[in-house]
Amino acid sequence: MTDLHPLAPLLAPRSVAIFGASNDPTRISGRSLRYFREAGYQGGLYPINPTRDTVQGLKAYPDLASVPGEVDFGLIAVPANLAVEAMEACVAKGVRGVVMFTAGFAEIGAEGRAMQERITKIALDSGIRLCGPNCLGLFNMRIGHTPTFSSFLEEGPPQSGPLGMVTQSGAFGTHLLALTARRGISVGVWMSTGNEAEVQVADGISFLADDPETQAIACYMEAIQDGERFAAAVKRARENGKPVIAMKVGGSEIGAAAAASHTASLAGSDAIYDAALRQLGVERAKTPEDLVEIAYACTRGRLPRSRKLAVMTMSGGAGVLMADAAEEQGLDLAPLAPESQKTVLEWVPFAAPRNPVDVTAQALNDPSILDKSFDLILGKEKFPSMVGFFTTWASSPQMAEPLYKSLTGAAERYPDSYIALSAIAAPEMQRRYEAAGIGVYEDPWRAVEAVAAATRCAERIATPPHPIPPVPKGIAKLPSHALSEHEAKSILAAAGIPILEERLVTSEAEAKACADLGEKLVLKIVSPEITHKTEVGGVMLNVAANAASAAYGELMARVAARAPHANLEGVLISPMLTDGTEMILGVQHDGVFGPTVLLGLGGIFVEVLRDVTFRIAPFGLEEAHAMIGELRGKAILEGARGKPPGDLDALAETLSKLSLFAAAQKGQFSSIDINPLLVRPKGKGVVALDALIVTDATPAHGH
Amino acid sequence: MTDLHPLAPLLAPRSVAIFGASNDPTRISGRSLRYFREAGYQGGLYPINPTRDTVQGLKAYPDLASVPGEVDFGLIAVPANLAVEAMEACVAKGVRGVVMFTAGFAEIGAEGRAMQERITKIALDSGIRLCGPNCLGLFNMRIGHTPTFSSFLEEGPPQSGPLGMVTQSGAFGTHLLALTARRGISVGVWMSTGNEAEVQVADGISFLADDPETQAIACYMEAIQDGERFAAAVKRARENGKPVIAMKVGGSEIGAAAAASHTASLAGSDAIYDAALRQLGVERAKTPEDLVEIAYACTRGRLPRSRKLAVMTMSGGAGVLMADAAEEQGLDLAPLAPESQKTVLEWVPFAAPRNPVDVTAQALNDPSILDKSFDLILGKEKFPSMVGFFTTWASSPQMAEPLYKSLTGAAERYPDSYIALSAIAAPEMQRRYEAAGIGVYEDPWRAVEAVAAATRCAERIATPPHPIPPVPKGIAKLPSHALSEHEAKSILAAAGIPILEERLVTSEAEAKACADLGEKLVLKIVSPEITHKTEVGGVMLNVAANAASAAYGELMARVAARAPHANLEGVLISPMLTDGTEMILGVQHDGVFGPTVLLGLGGIFVEVLRDVTFRIAPFGLEEAHAMIGELRGKAILEGARGKPPGDLDALAETLSKLSLFAAAQKGQFSSIDINPLLVRPKGKGVVALDALIVTDATPAHGH
Repeated sequence: MTDLHPLAPLLAPRSVAIFGASNDPTRISGRSLRYFREAGYQGGLYPINPTRDTVQGLKAYPDLASVPGEVDFGLIAVPANLAVEAMEACVAKGVRGVVMFTAGFAEIGAEGRAMQERITKIALDSGIRLCGPNCLGLFNMRIGHTPTFSSFLEEGPPQSGPLGMVTQSGAFGTHLLALTARRGISVGVWMSTGNEAEVQVADGISFLADDPETQAIACYMEAIQDGERFAAAVKRARENGKPVIAMKVGGSEIGAAAAASHTASLAGSDAIYDAALRQLGVERAKTPEDLVEIAYACTRGRLPRSRKLAVMTMSGGAGVLMADAAEEQGLDLAPLAPESQKTVLEWVPFAAPRNPVDVTAQALNDPSILDKSFDLILGKEKFPSMVGFFTTWASSPQMAEPLYKSLTGAAERYPDSYIALSAIAAPEMQRRYEAAGIGVYEDPWRAVEAVAAATRCAERIATPPHPIPPVPKGIAKLPSHALSEHEAKSILAAAGIPILEERLVTSEAEAKACADLGEKLVLKIVSPEITHKTEVGGVMLNVAANAASAAYGELMARVAARAPHANLEGVLISPMLTDGTEMILGVQHDGVFGPTVLLGLGGIFVEVLRDVTFRIAPFGLEEAHAMIGELRGKAILEGARGKPPGDLDALAETLSKLSLFAAAQKGQFSSIDINPLLVRPKGKGVVALDALIVTDATPAHGH
Repeated sequence: MTDLHPLAPLLAPRSVAIFGASNDPTRISGRSLRYFREAGYQGGLYPINPTRDTVQGLKAYPDLASVPGEVDFGLIAVPANLAVEAMEACVAKGVRGVVMFTAGFAEIGAEGRAMQERITKIALDSGIRLCGPNCLGLFNMRIGHTPTFSSFLEEGPPQSGPLGMVTQSGAFGTHLLALTARRGISVGVWMSTGNEAEVQVADGISFLADDPETQAIACYMEAIQDGERFAAAVKRARENGKPVIAMKVGGSEIGAAAAASHTASLAGSDAIYDAALRQLGVERAKTPEDLVEIAYACTRGRLPRSRKLAVMTMSGGAGVLMADAAEEQGLDLAPLAPESQKTVLEWVPFAAPRNPVDVTAQALNDPSILDKSFDLILGKEKFPSMVGFFTTWASSPQMAEPLYKSLTGAAERYPDSYIALSAIAAPEMQRRYEAAGIGVYEDPWRAVEAVAAATRCAERIATPPHPIPPVPKGIAKLPSHALSEHEAKSILAAAGIPILEERLVTSEAEAKACADLGEKLVLKIVSPEITHKTEVGGVMLNVAANAASAAYGELMARVAARAPHANLEGVLISPMLTDGTEMILGVQHDGVFGPTVLLGLGGIFVEVLRDVTFRIAPFGLEEAHAMIGELRGKAILEGARGKPPGDLDALAETLSKLSLFAAAQKGQFSSIDINPLLVRPKGKGVVALDALIVTDATPAHGH
C-alpha cells in the first residue's frame, strides 16, 4: 500500500500547505492551488499568504504555524533566499514531505550549491522527503494531489491511469506527459525530481512499485545519483510485476571523466549505464517515441507469456515486413501446425497459411474468417501473442464494427493472450480497442517492436533474478602502498583467480629446478628500475625446460649489459602456455554503480572493435555466462577456426569471483586489470598471465 | 516534361477506356470511373460495357473498337480468362498504356505464370506499357487520372502534392498513403506495380524523376526485378535533384538461394540490397514510420546545405537528447562563436549558449529572444539547419502565435536555411508551419533524425556520382573448361590484379634457380590428384632461398611416399611474404544487380564477425576507398597495434580493377575468390597469394 511507503508524505499526503499561494489562478504561484481544487483533492488545503484573508476562495494563513492541526506536505515556491526559512517552518510544524519549485540552487554554481546543501541537510536531519529544488513538482491523480506548475494540467486535471512516470527534467517531463496523452495513455502518478537534493528518480520508482494501480513505470534521467538506491527500486518494481522503462540521455558525452587505467579507457560511461540497466532488468528506450510506445504496450492490462508470435495479415507485403521485424526483435514466428494450415486454406484458397497467416482481402467478403482465424491461432494453436494487420478496415464503414467485434471477442475468450492491432482507426475506435486490452499501432513494424518490448519486460518479471554468491566478509584490506605485479597476483590468487605459476629464481641452479613447471618456459627479468622489460631484452619466450639454467645466465648477462645501472633482483620463471584464447578482464570503479567488471576478447577485438561487455559487481555464474554471450567474438571462445572450445565454465567462475573480490574491496582500489587471461580448452581451466591492481594514490581515506 | 516520358501513356494519358465499368459506383468495377469524375479528369473517358447504354451517366461503348477517335489508356479489370482478349483489343485500338487489376496470374502458380507470360509478350511486342496484373492501379492527381480501386480514394480525391510514391504492394501501398496523409504529406502521383509483368517500380521512379511537381520519391519493394533499370531510374532522380527513399522488405529470408562459393555464403541477399541501395544513392528506410518521416523531411521545399546543425531549446533535457541524436546521426553541432555565446548570455543569464542553445523558459517572459536567437543562429552564424524544441508552446494560448510569427519570419528571412520544429501543435497550426516550409515533429529525437536523413539526401544530390573507369572491351572470354588455380591467376594478372610470382619447377636445379625470388620461399606440390596439399605434407613454408634445392628433393620424396598414386607435376615456388594484412576479395553474380564485389578482412573478421562489404561492379577508386572505409576492422589496415599502415591506394586500385574485370566477364563466371590478398605496407602494393575463378564447368568440389 502506498500510504505506508516512505514517500507517502510527498506523493500521497493527507493535508497540504502552499507557501506563497497567489489569488491569481493563472500565475505560477497560483496554478497549483487551482489544480488541487480542479482535481478534487479531499485532504486539508492551506494557502499560506500573509497579505490576504482568502486565496482563491479558501481561508489563507499568515504562516505555517497558524494552520490548525497537522500538515503532511508543504509546497515551496518562494524565492531561493527564503527557502531555508520555509524549510525550517516545515520542520517546526512536523511536515514530512516538501516539493520545492524554487530555482537558483546547484544549477547556478558554487553559491547555489552551498544553499542546496543547507536545505538538503535540513531535510535529512528532520526526515522530510524533499522533491527538488528547481523542479516542476509532481501529481498523483489517484487522490488529486497536484503540487506542480506543469502546463500539462492547464487543459484540466489529467485522467488517472495505469502508467507511472518519473522524470528528472520537468520541462521534458511535461513534453512526455503530452506525448503519452496523445497516445491515449493515462499517467496516474508523475514526479519531476529537478536537482535531486534528496529525493531521486529511484524513490519515485519505488513508490510506483507499491502503487496498486500502476501497471508500468516510465522514467527519464540525465544521470543516476545513487546506483544502489536505483537498483533496489527496480528490484521492488520487478517483484511487484511492473516493468520499468527508462530513457537515459547524455550518452554522447562519452568518457568525460575517463580514468587513466586501460580498463577505464574502454568504458564509455554510457556503455556502463547500458550494461547496468540491462543487468537490473530495465527496458531501455532510445527515443521518446520508443519510451511512449513501450509504455503503451506495457499498460494493456496483460503481458505476453512467451516469445512465440502469430502474425495475421490481409496484405502479403505487411506480412513480410512484420516477419522482418519479428526476426530482428527475436520473436518466434513458429509455423501453424500442418492441419491448421490446411484449415486456413479451406477458408481462403489463396491464403499464405504458415505464419504470417495472410488471409488476403477475403474477409471483406466473408467476415466469419476473422473469428475462425482467431480461434484457430489463439485457441487451438495457443499462441501467447498475436499481431493482426488490418490497415484501414478499422475505420471503414463496412468493416470497422465486424473487425472490432471479432478482435475484442477474441480478447475476451482468450484473456491470457496478448493482442495487438496494426490499423488506422479513428481516435474513438482506438480508445474502444484499448479498453478491451488491445493496443493499436498504425505502423506494423512498430506493432511487432512493441510486442517484443512487452515480451522482454514480461520475461524479466517472470525470471527470478540470478543468484549472487555472498560477498566474502572480513578478508584482508588491500595494502595502502602501490602493489607490485607479484603482490597483485598473490592477492587475486587468494581470491580464487587462477594465476600462472611463477617462481622468482636468483641462480642458475634455481632456474634448473624449474624444469618441473613445463616443457617450455618463459623467463622475465625482475628489477624495480626496469618497466619495459622487452626493450632491454629482459624476456625470453619458449625456452626448453632443460635449457632454463643456461637461459638464466644469458638473460642476466644481457640485461646487465644493456641496463648497467638497474638493480636485478632475479628472474621470474613460468610455464609457457599457448593453448588458449587471450581475454582481458578488468574492474573499474564507476561513480554511480561502484565496482564494474569488464570482459573483452584480447588483441584486435578489444583494441580495434571495442568488443567489451560490463557488469556491476557482484554477480554469479549465470550473469557471467550472459556476459560471455554478449561478446561479438564469442565464436572464437566456442571453437571457431579449428580451435578446441574454450573452458567457458572456468571463465564464468573467474568472472564471478573477480566480481565478488571487487565488491569486497569496494573503495580500496581504483582499478584491476587481468590482461591477458588465457582461456584454455574445455576442462583445462583459465589462467591469468598478468595482473595489476591500482590502488588510490592518495591515502586520504586513512586505511 | 512528363508527357514526353515513356510512361506518359500510363501515368498521364489524354483519354481513358475502362473495360467492364460498372454502373454501381461502390463496386470495385465501378469505383475507378467514379474517382476519375470526382478528381475532375479532363481527358476522354470511355466506359466499355456491352450491356448498357450509359454507365454512371456517361455514354458506354460495347467494345473498345467502337470508341471514336484515339484512346491512350485502358483499365482492365475483367477476369483473368478474358484479359488476353482485352489486351488484344487494346493493341488493335492503338492503346499505349494499360493498368490491369486482374488477379490469377503468376501469384497462383504455373498456369497463371504462363498466362502472365502471354500478356507480357503482347505488351512488349506492341509497346504497350503494362502496369500489373494483380495490382491496385495508380493515380496521378496532377491531372485527376485515377485508374485504381484503392480504398484511399474513398474519402474523396487526394490532394495533389510534392511526394511521389511507388509501391509494389497495393494493399500496403494504400496503408502508406493513409500514413502519409495523416502526417500531412500530399502524394501527387502513386503507382502500385503488383506482379510487375512489364512496368516495374523503377519505371515509376523514372517518371517521377521527370515530374516537375515531385520533390521526393518514396518506394516500397519486396524485390527489384532489374537492377540496371532501377539504377538508371535512381540516377535520373538524382540528376533532377530528387531524393529517392526506399523500403525494401524481406531481409529476414536471408540466403534463401545461397550459392556454393565461399563468397556467396557470406552474402545474405539483403546485405547486397543494402550495399547496392547505398551505392546508388538511395536513402533506405527501415520501417514505415521511417519512410514517412524521411519523405516528410524531404518535401519541405528545401534541403539542408551541410551537416552543421544548430539546436535551440527551452528545455535542457531535450537539448541533451538532441545532442545524443545528432552525434548518432553524424550531424555536427558546431559551437557558436564566443562572441555569439556572450550575446546569448546577455539576453538570458542562465542560458547554455554553446550548441545546443538552451534559452530556458525565459522567452515566455520576453518573446523577442526568439527573433534575436534565430537571427543570430541563421543570420550571423549562418547555420544551414536548425532544430528548435518548443514543446507545447506551439499550442499554448500565450505562445503559439508569437512562436509561429518568429519561426516563419526566420524561414522567410533565411530561405536557404532548413528549419525543423519539435513541438506539440494542433493539426491546423502544424499545417501552417508546413506551408512555411517548416516540418513539425513531436519527438525531438525524430526531428534530428529527419534532418539528418534530409541532409544525407541533399549530399547525394549535390555530390556528382563517382566516376567509373571504362569496362575493358574485347578482352578474351573466359575458357569454357574448369579453370586451374594457375590459369585463374594468369587471367587475373592480365586484368591488372597483382599476383604473387610463382614458378613451376621440376628439378632441384630449377629450384635452386629460384633463389632470386626472395630470401624466404614457399614450396607447394602440384598434382591434379592432390586437393588438400597440407595433408600429404605438400607445403613447405619459410624455406631459406639457399636451401630451395634440398627442400625440393625433400618435398617430392615426402609426397611420393605419402601419396604413392598421385602424379606429381612438380613444385610451385614463390616468395614467402608476411609483411601485410590478409584480405578476402570476391565476386559473385547477384540475380538482381549482376556481378557484385565483396571485400573483407581475412581470418576472424570474415569468419567470426562477417565483417564484409559489397559493391555492384563496375566501380572506380572513390567507391573502392569508401568500401574499405566501411569495414569495422579498417583500423587494422590503417596501422593499428604497431603495424605499419597498409597500402590502401593499391588495395582500392585492385578492387576497382577486379570490378572492371567482373563487369567485362559478366555471365562468364559464377564466382571469383582472391583469398588471401596481402595488403603490404604503404608503397609496397598488394599481392594475391591465391585465387580461384569458378565457371559453370567447375566441378562441385573443385577447390
